[in-house]
Amino acid sequence: MVVKVYGPTYGCPKRVLVCLIEKEIEFETVDVDLFKGEHKEPEFLKLQPFGSVPVIQDGDYTLYESRAIIRYFAEKYKDQGTELLGKTIEEKGLVEQWLEVEAHNFHPPLYDLVMNVLFAPLMGAPSDQKVIEESDKKLEKVLDVYEERLSNSKYLAGDFFSLADLSHLPFGHYLVNQTGRGNLVRERKHVNAWWDDISNRSSWKKVLQLYKYAV
Amino acid sequence: MVVKVYGPTYGCPKRVLVCLIEKEIEFETVDVDLFKGEHKEPEFLKLQPFGSVPVIQDGDYTLYESRAIIRYFAEKYKDQGTELLGKTIEEKGLVEQWLEVEAHNFHPPLYDLVMNVLFAPLMGAPSDQKVIEESDKKLEKVLDVYEERLSNSKYLAGDFFSLADLSHLPFGHYLVNQTGRGNLVRERKHVNAWWDDISNRSSWKKVLQLYKYAV
Repeated sequence: MVVKVYGPTYGCPKRVLVCLIEKEIEFETVDVDLFKGEHKEPEFLKLQPFGSVPVIQDGDYTLYESRAIIRYFAEKYKDQGTELLGKTIEEKGLVEQWLEVEAHNFHPPLYDLVMNVLFAPLMGAPSDQKVIEESDKKLEKVLDVYEERLSNSKYLAGDFFSLADLSHLPFGHYLVNQTGRGNLVRERKHVNAWWDDISNRSSWKKVLQLYKYAV
Repeated sequence: MVVKVYGPTYGCPKRVLVCLIEKEIEFETVDVDLFKGEHKEPEFLKLQPFGSVPVIQDGDYTLYESRAIIRYFAEKYKDQGTELLGKTIEEKGLVEQWLEVEAHNFHPPLYDLVMNVLFAPLMGAPSDQKVIEESDKKLEKVLDVYEERLSNSKYLAGDFFSLADLSHLPFGHYLVNQTGRGNLVRERKHVNAWWDDISNRSSWKKVLQLYKYAV
Protein backbone atom coordinates (compact mmCIF):
# COMPACT_ATOMS: atom_id res chain seq x y z
CA MET A 1 0.00 0.00 0.00
CA VAL A 2 1.26 3.46 -0.92
CA VAL A 3 2.08 5.96 1.84
CA LYS A 4 -0.46 8.79 2.20
CA VAL A 5 0.64 12.30 3.20
CA TYR A 6 -1.93 14.84 4.41
CA GLY A 7 -1.54 18.56 3.72
CA PRO A 8 1.11 18.74 0.95
CA THR A 9 0.67 22.45 0.20
CA TYR A 10 1.94 23.59 3.63
CA GLY A 11 5.40 23.98 5.10
CA CYS A 12 5.75 21.16 7.63
CA PRO A 13 4.27 18.46 5.36
CA LYS A 14 6.89 19.42 2.75
CA ARG A 15 9.53 18.22 5.25
CA VAL A 16 7.95 14.77 4.85
CA LEU A 17 7.58 14.99 1.06
CA VAL A 18 11.24 15.83 0.45
CA CYS A 19 12.27 13.01 2.78
CA LEU A 20 10.08 10.48 0.94
CA ILE A 21 11.57 11.52 -2.38
CA GLU A 22 15.14 11.27 -1.02
CA LYS A 23 14.29 7.79 0.30
CA GLU A 24 12.63 6.75 -3.01
CA ILE A 25 9.38 5.84 -1.27
CA GLU A 26 6.19 5.90 -3.30
CA PHE A 27 3.41 8.09 -1.90
CA GLU A 28 0.22 9.95 -2.65
CA THR A 29 -1.10 13.15 -1.09
CA VAL A 30 -4.42 14.20 0.44
CA ASP A 31 -5.26 17.90 0.44
CA VAL A 32 -6.26 19.57 3.71
CA ASP A 33 -7.42 23.19 3.45
CA LEU A 34 -6.33 25.00 6.62
CA PHE A 35 -7.99 28.20 5.44
CA LYS A 36 -11.33 26.38 5.43
CA GLY A 37 -10.55 24.82 8.83
CA GLU A 38 -10.50 21.25 7.52
CA HIS A 39 -7.78 20.39 10.08
CA LYS A 40 -10.28 21.03 12.88
CA GLU A 41 -13.01 18.76 11.52
CA PRO A 42 -13.84 15.57 13.47
CA GLU A 43 -12.65 13.22 10.71
CA PHE A 44 -9.24 14.87 10.64
CA LEU A 45 -8.96 15.06 14.45
CA LYS A 46 -9.30 11.28 14.54
CA LEU A 47 -5.99 11.14 12.67
CA GLN A 48 -4.28 14.09 14.39
CA PRO A 49 -5.96 15.08 17.68
CA PHE A 50 -4.07 18.40 17.89
CA GLY A 51 -5.40 19.46 14.47
CA SER A 52 -2.10 20.02 12.66
CA VAL A 53 -0.59 18.84 9.39
CA PRO A 54 1.12 16.62 8.38
CA VAL A 55 -0.17 13.16 9.17
CA ILE A 56 0.93 10.08 7.26
CA GLN A 57 -0.63 6.67 6.80
CA ASP A 58 1.67 3.79 6.00
CA GLY A 59 -0.72 0.88 5.56
CA ASP A 60 -2.72 0.88 8.78
CA TYR A 61 0.00 2.74 10.71
CA THR A 62 -0.73 6.43 11.35
CA LEU A 63 1.90 8.92 12.47
CA TYR A 64 2.04 12.69 12.94
CA GLU A 65 4.62 15.40 13.72
CA SER A 66 6.82 15.99 10.69
CA ARG A 67 10.16 15.48 12.45
CA ALA A 68 8.96 12.17 13.91
CA ILE A 69 7.75 11.04 10.49
CA ILE A 70 11.05 11.78 8.74
CA ARG A 71 12.97 9.88 11.43
CA TYR A 72 10.58 6.94 11.01
CA PHE A 73 11.03 6.71 7.24
CA ALA A 74 14.80 7.34 7.40
CA GLU A 75 15.08 4.40 9.79
CA LYS A 76 12.56 2.08 8.13
CA TYR A 77 14.24 2.48 4.74
CA LYS A 78 17.79 2.81 6.04
CA ASP A 79 19.30 1.04 3.05
CA GLN A 80 17.20 2.67 0.35
CA GLY A 81 17.77 6.08 -1.30
CA THR A 82 19.87 8.74 0.47
CA GLU A 83 21.27 7.79 3.89
CA LEU A 84 19.93 10.60 6.12
CA LEU A 85 20.69 9.55 9.69
CA GLY A 86 24.51 9.34 9.85
CA LYS A 87 26.52 6.14 9.92
CA THR A 88 27.77 5.99 13.51
CA ILE A 89 26.10 6.63 16.87
CA GLU A 90 28.15 9.84 17.12
CA GLU A 91 27.12 11.10 13.68
CA LYS A 92 23.54 10.24 14.50
CA GLY A 93 23.81 12.21 17.75
CA LEU A 94 24.86 15.29 15.79
CA VAL A 95 22.03 14.80 13.31
CA GLU A 96 19.66 14.74 16.30
CA GLN A 97 21.30 17.82 17.81
CA TRP A 98 20.88 19.89 14.64
CA LEU A 99 17.35 18.60 14.10
CA GLU A 100 16.60 19.95 17.58
CA VAL A 101 18.36 23.24 16.80
CA GLU A 102 16.18 23.57 13.71
CA ALA A 103 13.07 22.88 15.78
CA HIS A 104 13.91 25.10 18.77
CA ASN A 105 16.18 27.89 17.48
CA PHE A 106 15.58 28.30 13.75
CA HIS A 107 11.91 27.43 13.37
CA PRO A 108 10.14 29.44 16.13
CA PRO A 109 11.24 32.97 15.13
CA LEU A 110 10.86 32.10 11.44
CA TYR A 111 7.37 30.72 12.05
CA ASP A 112 6.40 33.94 13.85
CA LEU A 113 7.79 35.93 10.95
CA VAL A 114 5.90 33.91 8.35
CA MET A 115 2.68 34.20 10.34
CA ASN A 116 2.97 37.96 10.73
CA VAL A 117 4.46 38.88 7.36
CA LEU A 118 2.58 36.46 5.11
CA PHE A 119 -0.44 34.84 6.75
CA ALA A 120 -1.87 37.63 8.92
CA PRO A 121 -2.46 40.05 6.02
CA LEU A 122 -4.05 37.25 3.99
CA MET A 123 -6.46 36.46 6.78
CA GLY A 124 -7.27 40.12 7.44
CA ALA A 125 -5.54 39.91 10.84
CA PRO A 126 -3.17 42.60 12.13
CA SER A 127 0.59 41.99 11.88
CA ASP A 128 2.49 42.43 15.11
CA GLN A 129 5.41 44.74 14.32
CA LYS A 130 7.14 44.03 17.63
CA VAL A 131 7.07 40.27 17.00
CA ILE A 132 8.47 40.85 13.51
CA GLU A 133 11.38 42.92 14.85
CA GLU A 134 12.19 40.47 17.63
CA SER A 135 12.01 37.51 15.23
CA ASP A 136 14.39 39.22 12.82
CA LYS A 137 16.90 39.78 15.62
CA LYS A 138 16.64 36.22 16.90
CA LEU A 139 17.09 34.81 13.40
CA GLU A 140 20.19 36.90 12.78
CA LYS A 141 21.80 35.53 15.94
CA VAL A 142 20.87 31.97 15.06
CA LEU A 143 22.28 32.33 11.55
CA ASP A 144 25.52 33.73 12.99
CA VAL A 145 25.96 30.42 14.82
CA TYR A 146 25.14 28.53 11.61
CA GLU A 147 27.76 30.59 9.74
CA GLU A 148 30.41 29.58 12.25
CA ARG A 149 29.36 25.93 12.14
CA LEU A 150 29.19 25.80 8.34
CA SER A 151 32.63 27.35 8.01
CA ASN A 152 33.96 24.14 9.62
CA SER A 153 31.66 21.56 8.14
CA LYS A 154 29.91 21.27 4.77
CA TYR A 155 26.56 20.32 6.31
CA LEU A 156 25.15 20.86 9.79
CA ALA A 157 25.86 17.45 11.29
CA GLY A 158 29.14 16.89 9.42
CA ASP A 159 30.32 16.34 5.86
CA PHE A 160 27.15 14.51 4.85
CA PHE A 161 23.65 15.72 3.94
CA SER A 162 21.17 14.55 6.59
CA LEU A 163 17.69 15.00 8.08
CA ALA A 164 19.13 18.00 9.94
CA ASP A 165 19.71 19.92 6.70
CA LEU A 166 16.58 18.59 5.00
CA SER A 167 14.45 19.79 7.88
CA HIS A 168 15.36 23.42 7.11
CA LEU A 169 14.07 23.37 3.52
CA PRO A 170 10.34 24.21 3.89
CA PHE A 171 10.72 27.25 6.13
CA GLY A 172 14.12 28.20 4.68
CA HIS A 173 12.19 28.61 1.42
CA TYR A 174 9.84 31.07 3.13
CA LEU A 175 12.79 32.96 4.58
CA VAL A 176 14.64 33.30 1.29
CA ASN A 177 11.80 33.63 -1.19
CA GLN A 178 8.65 34.91 0.47
CA THR A 179 9.43 37.21 3.37
CA GLY A 180 11.90 39.58 1.68
CA ARG A 181 14.70 38.35 3.94
CA GLY A 182 16.95 36.53 1.47
CA ASN A 183 19.73 38.89 2.56
CA LEU A 184 19.95 37.12 5.96
CA VAL A 185 21.20 34.09 4.04
CA ARG A 186 23.13 35.82 1.26
CA GLU A 187 25.13 38.02 3.66
CA ARG A 188 26.59 34.91 5.31
CA LYS A 189 29.03 33.21 2.96
CA HIS A 190 28.85 29.68 4.33
CA VAL A 191 25.14 29.73 5.10
CA ASN A 192 24.60 30.94 1.55
CA ALA A 193 26.69 28.13 0.02
CA TRP A 194 24.89 25.58 2.19
CA TRP A 195 21.47 26.93 1.23
CA ASP A 196 22.41 26.91 -2.47
CA ASP A 197 23.51 23.31 -2.13
CA ILE A 198 20.52 21.91 -0.26
CA SER A 199 17.82 23.94 -2.04
CA ASN A 200 19.15 22.78 -5.41
CA ARG A 201 18.78 19.09 -4.63
CA SER A 202 16.51 17.46 -7.19
CA SER A 203 14.25 16.15 -4.39
CA TRP A 204 13.45 19.66 -3.19
CA LYS A 205 13.01 21.02 -6.72
CA LYS A 206 10.53 18.23 -7.35
CA VAL A 207 8.59 19.13 -4.18
CA LEU A 208 8.38 22.78 -5.26
CA GLN A 209 7.30 21.83 -8.74
CA LEU A 210 4.63 19.29 -7.75
CA TYR A 211 3.25 20.72 -4.52
CA LYS A 212 2.95 24.51 -4.71
CA TYR A 213 2.85 26.37 -1.40
CA ALA A 214 -0.69 27.40 -0.41
CA VAL A 215 0.88 30.80 0.41
CA MET B 1 35.89 8.50 31.17
CA VAL B 2 32.75 9.50 33.03
CA VAL B 3 30.02 11.49 31.22
CA LYS B 4 29.80 15.16 32.24
CA VAL B 5 26.45 16.98 32.38
CA TYR B 6 26.35 20.78 32.53
CA GLY B 7 23.59 22.62 34.42
CA PRO B 8 22.01 19.93 36.66
CA THR B 9 19.87 22.33 38.72
CA TYR B 10 17.69 23.37 35.76
CA GLY B 11 14.74 21.74 34.03
CA CYS B 12 16.05 20.60 30.63
CA PRO B 13 19.31 19.12 32.01
CA LYS B 14 17.18 17.00 34.36
CA ARG B 15 15.77 15.30 31.25
CA VAL B 16 19.33 14.06 30.65
CA LEU B 17 20.00 13.12 34.29
CA VAL B 18 16.93 10.92 34.60
CA CYS B 19 17.80 9.24 31.30
CA LEU B 20 21.37 8.51 32.45
CA ILE B 21 20.08 6.96 35.68
CA GLU B 22 17.52 4.83 33.79
CA LYS B 23 20.33 3.67 31.49
CA GLU B 24 22.71 3.01 34.42
CA ILE B 25 25.39 5.28 32.98
CA GLU B 26 27.91 6.81 35.35
CA PHE B 27 28.15 10.61 35.23
CA GLU B 28 29.25 13.73 37.04
CA THR B 29 27.74 17.21 36.91
CA VAL B 30 29.13 20.70 36.34
CA ASP B 31 27.18 23.62 37.75
CA VAL B 32 26.25 26.53 35.48
CA ASP B 33 24.61 29.53 37.14
CA LEU B 34 22.13 31.03 34.69
CA PHE B 35 21.27 33.80 37.14
CA LYS B 36 24.91 34.95 37.00
CA GLY B 37 24.92 34.60 33.19
CA GLU B 38 27.53 31.85 33.16
CA HIS B 39 25.82 30.32 30.09
CA LYS B 40 26.72 33.42 28.07
CA GLU B 41 30.43 33.40 28.93
CA PRO B 42 32.93 32.63 26.13
CA GLU B 43 34.11 29.36 27.69
CA PHE B 44 30.57 28.03 27.85
CA LEU B 45 29.67 29.29 24.36
CA LYS B 46 32.51 27.16 22.98
CA LEU B 47 30.55 24.12 24.19
CA GLN B 48 27.06 25.41 23.39
CA PRO B 49 27.06 28.34 20.94
CA PHE B 50 23.41 29.24 21.61
CA GLY B 51 24.12 29.63 25.35
CA SER B 52 21.68 27.06 26.74
CA VAL B 53 21.90 24.12 29.11
CA PRO B 54 22.36 21.18 29.02
CA VAL B 55 25.55 20.16 27.28
CA ILE B 56 27.19 16.79 27.81
CA GLN B 57 30.71 15.54 27.26
CA ASP B 58 31.18 11.85 26.66
CA GLY B 59 34.95 11.51 26.41
CA ASP B 60 35.88 14.02 23.69
CA TYR B 61 32.40 13.99 22.20
CA THR B 62 30.28 17.05 22.99
CA LEU B 63 26.53 17.20 22.44
CA TYR B 64 23.77 19.66 23.30
CA GLU B 65 19.95 19.85 23.16
CA SER B 66 18.42 17.65 25.85
CA ARG B 67 16.15 15.64 23.55
CA ALA B 68 19.06 14.88 21.21
CA ILE B 69 21.21 13.81 24.15
CA ILE B 70 18.63 11.39 25.55
CA ARG B 71 18.18 9.80 22.11
CA TYR B 72 21.97 9.45 21.82
CA PHE B 73 22.37 7.66 25.16
CA ALA B 74 19.25 5.52 24.67
CA GLU B 75 20.72 4.29 21.39
CA LYS B 76 24.35 3.99 22.49
CA TYR B 77 23.39 1.90 25.53
CA LYS B 78 20.45 0.12 23.91
CA ASP B 79 21.05 -3.11 25.84
CA GLN B 80 21.81 -1.54 29.22
CA GLY B 81 19.28 -0.34 31.82
CA THR B 82 15.71 0.48 30.83
CA GLU B 83 14.85 0.11 27.13
CA LEU B 84 13.54 3.59 26.24
CA LEU B 85 13.20 3.64 22.46
CA GLY B 86 10.63 0.95 21.67
CA LYS B 87 11.39 -2.46 20.20
CA THR B 88 10.08 -2.17 16.63
CA ILE B 89 10.32 0.57 14.01
CA GLU B 90 6.62 1.28 14.58
CA GLU B 91 6.99 1.59 18.35
CA LYS B 92 10.00 3.80 17.83
CA GLY B 93 7.97 6.01 15.47
CA LEU B 94 5.38 6.52 18.20
CA VAL B 95 8.09 7.32 20.75
CA GLU B 96 9.37 9.96 18.32
CA GLN B 97 5.84 11.29 17.75
CA TRP B 98 5.19 11.80 21.47
CA LEU B 99 8.66 13.24 22.04
CA GLU B 100 7.74 15.82 19.41
CA VAL B 101 4.33 16.41 21.02
CA GLU B 102 6.12 17.04 24.32
CA ALA B 103 8.49 19.48 22.61
CA HIS B 104 5.93 21.35 20.51
CA ASN B 105 2.58 21.09 22.33
CA PHE B 106 3.27 20.46 26.01
CA HIS B 107 6.53 22.32 26.60
CA PRO B 108 6.00 25.78 25.01
CA PRO B 109 2.92 26.90 27.00
CA LEU B 110 4.32 25.32 30.17
CA TYR B 111 7.66 27.07 29.65
CA ASP B 112 5.86 30.41 29.25
CA LEU B 113 3.93 29.68 32.41
CA VAL B 114 7.05 28.81 34.40
CA MET B 115 8.83 31.92 33.14
CA ASN B 116 5.97 34.23 34.04
CA VAL B 117 4.77 32.62 37.26
CA LEU B 118 8.12 31.60 38.79
CA PHE B 119 11.12 33.23 37.15
CA ALA B 120 9.89 36.75 36.31
CA PRO B 121 9.06 37.67 39.92
CA LEU B 122 12.43 36.29 41.05
CA MET B 123 14.27 38.42 38.54
CA GLY B 124 12.21 41.51 39.32
CA ALA B 125 10.63 41.39 35.87
CA PRO B 126 6.90 41.91 35.27
CA SER B 127 4.72 38.82 34.72
CA ASP B 128 2.59 38.93 31.59
CA GLN B 129 -0.95 38.10 32.70
CA LYS B 130 -2.18 37.62 29.13
CA VAL B 131 0.55 35.06 28.43
CA ILE B 132 -0.33 33.24 31.65
CA GLU B 133 -4.01 33.02 30.70
CA GLU B 134 -3.30 31.87 27.16
CA SER B 135 -0.78 29.28 28.38
CA ASP B 136 -3.29 27.87 30.85
CA LYS B 137 -5.87 27.48 28.09
CA LYS B 138 -3.41 25.85 25.70
CA LEU B 139 -2.24 23.41 28.37
CA GLU B 140 -5.79 22.38 29.22
CA LYS B 141 -6.45 21.51 25.58
CA VAL B 142 -3.19 19.59 25.29
CA LEU B 143 -3.93 17.63 28.46
CA ASP B 144 -7.39 16.78 27.14
CA VAL B 145 -5.70 15.02 24.23
CA TYR B 146 -3.35 13.26 26.66
CA GLU B 147 -6.33 12.11 28.72
CA GLU B 148 -7.89 10.52 25.64
CA ARG B 149 -4.61 8.88 24.63
CA LEU B 150 -3.84 7.59 28.13
CA SER B 151 -7.30 6.09 28.46
CA ASN B 152 -6.26 3.70 25.66
CA SER B 153 -2.64 3.15 26.47
CA LYS B 154 -0.70 2.98 29.74
CA TYR B 155 2.10 5.24 28.49
CA LEU B 156 2.21 7.77 25.67
CA ALA B 157 3.84 5.63 22.99
CA GLY B 158 2.18 2.36 24.04
CA ASP B 159 2.25 -0.03 26.97
CA PHE B 160 5.91 0.64 27.73
CA PHE B 161 7.69 3.52 29.50
CA SER B 162 9.86 5.41 27.00
CA LEU B 163 11.78 8.61 26.30
CA ALA B 164 8.43 10.17 25.41
CA ASP B 165 7.17 9.84 29.00
CA LEU B 166 10.55 10.58 30.58
CA SER B 167 10.83 13.82 28.65
CA HIS B 168 7.77 15.20 30.50
CA LEU B 169 9.26 14.82 33.98
CA PRO B 170 11.26 18.04 34.49
CA PHE B 171 8.57 20.48 33.42
CA GLY B 172 5.72 18.25 34.59
CA HIS B 173 7.29 18.70 38.03
CA TYR B 174 7.00 22.48 37.65
CA LEU B 175 3.39 22.13 36.55
CA VAL B 176 2.32 19.92 39.43
CA ASN B 177 4.48 21.23 42.25
CA GLN B 178 5.57 24.79 41.61
CA THR B 179 3.01 26.72 39.62
CA GLY B 180 -0.11 25.94 41.66
CA ARG B 181 -1.59 24.01 38.73
CA GLY B 182 -1.57 20.45 40.03
CA ASN B 183 -5.33 20.40 39.45
CA LEU B 184 -4.75 20.32 35.65
CA VAL B 185 -3.27 16.87 36.17
CA ARG B 186 -5.43 15.65 39.08
CA GLU B 187 -8.71 16.51 37.33
CA ARG B 188 -7.84 14.10 34.50
CA LYS B 189 -8.05 10.53 35.71
CA HIS B 190 -5.70 8.88 33.24
CA VAL B 191 -3.22 11.75 33.11
CA ASN B 192 -3.13 11.65 36.90
CA ALA B 193 -2.46 7.89 37.02
CA TRP B 194 0.26 8.27 34.38
CA TRP B 195 1.89 11.17 36.26
CA ASP B 196 1.79 9.21 39.53
CA ASP B 197 3.44 6.29 37.79
CA ILE B 198 6.27 8.13 36.03
CA SER B 199 7.02 10.65 38.77
CA ASN B 200 7.38 7.80 41.29
CA ARG B 201 10.07 6.01 39.33
CA SER B 202 13.18 5.64 41.46
CA SER B 203 15.27 7.35 38.76
CA TRP B 204 13.24 10.54 39.00
CA LYS B 205 13.14 10.48 42.80
CA LYS B 206 16.91 10.21 42.76
CA VAL B 207 17.19 13.23 40.44
CA LEU B 208 14.98 15.30 42.74
CA GLN B 209 16.92 14.23 45.79
CA LEU B 210 20.42 14.80 44.39
CA TYR B 211 19.93 17.79 42.09
CA LYS B 212 17.55 20.32 43.63
CA TYR B 213 15.86 22.74 41.24
CA ALA B 214 17.51 26.20 41.21
CA VAL B 215 13.94 27.53 41.38
